[in-house]
Amino acid sequence: MAASKSRRTPARKSLPLAKVYGLLEPGPVVLLTTVHNGCPNIMTNSWHTMLEFEPPLIGCVISNRNYSFAALKATRECVINIPAVGIAEKVVACGNSTGAKVDKFKKFGLTPLPAQQVGAPLIAECFVNLECRVVDTGMVNKYGLFVIEVVKAWIDPAAKNPRTIHHLGHGHFMVAGDKIKLKSKMK
Amino acid sequence: MAASKSRRTPARKSLPLAKVYGLLEPGPVVLLTTVHNGCPNIMTNSWHTMLEFEPPLIGCVISNRNYSFAALKATRECVINIPAVGIAEKVVACGNSTGAKVDKFKKFGLTPLPAQQVGAPLIAECFVNLECRVVDTGMVNKYGLFVIEVVKAWIDPAAKNPRTIHHLGHGHFMVAGDKIKLKSKMK
Repeated sequence: MAASKSRRTPARKSLPLAKVYGLLEPGPVVLLTTVHNGCPNIMTNSWHTMLEFEPPLIGCVISNRNYSFAALKATRECVINIPAVGIAEKVVACGNSTGAKVDKFKKFGLTPLPAQQVGAPLIAECFVNLECRVVDTGMVNKYGLFVIEVVKAWIDPAAKNPRTIHHLGHGHFMVAGDKIKLKSKMK
Repeated sequence: MAASKSRRTPARKSLPLAKVYGLLEPGPVVLLTTVHNGCPNIMTNSWHTMLEFEPPLIGCVISNRNYSFAALKATRECVINIPAVGIAEKVVACGNSTGAKVDKFKKFGLTPLPAQQVGAPLIAECFVNLECRVVDTGMVNKYGLFVIEVVKAWIDPAAKNPRTIHHLGHGHFMVAGDKIKLKSKMK
């Protein structure tokens, strides 16, 4: 039990904001958490892009058909959590259900941890947690595109080579494979 | 020689536009081609997200420091080409150089093919080519974000399980690994 508990609530290490882009550029499926009227919620999302390196700005597309849409609009805060393949089934379960009907933390056995800067919770089982504030809603009506700024980033130092998952449509996912290094001048 | 040539100019198969999102959601590095004043160019890009399923809308971030920026603004046309790991060194070479100084097609041995709907060329060595038109420049000044619509999509039917590359920063890349299938209601 002790080991299990320590696995589920790992120590978080602060991650420099300048390193955030390298975690989101490869396109992982993320779990976006919000809290609204006391109710925490989780949504599964693959439609995001970096917009600026530092401070890290992210464009995140959330349909107004998603329960999280109203929470994000009202609170202007969220956490982007990056899961590894070990909890892929929970990630899909979050995408298959709506926060209007279920408490996804309880139902899928995910652990909320308090964030430092925002009201939305971190997910303990994810190896990266990015605390975010909405900074521009000008593209929300047209495209559901929220511009959010990462204000605090955490990484689980115990996660060795976590393999992210990448959505290919209709429940098919690519799992992160080998890493290669090439001579690049790119940031 | 004949085999080499046939490898470099594979038959393209039309891909239904409804299938495009599944190719870009996993976050591959792409090569964006433009043509301006008769000069074709290539840029390496990882900052993109789907905005709509069909017709497929993509948000693509291109800095005004990139040579392709002016071409895209002026012509409002481009092709998004998806490379597999076999040409990763060429992809990085495109990112390390500027079209202001070199013809990247010639210098890196990439083959331009005529597109059907736009002036920008397809890259023969890429297994997917998405012909695109810019449909909204309202976010270009603030974020360098072009909203582009895929008007024609091509796939190389001979490419079996092509492994995309995913940028982790500073020349480190993740190569697409195994595929898994989970029970999902998600599109």
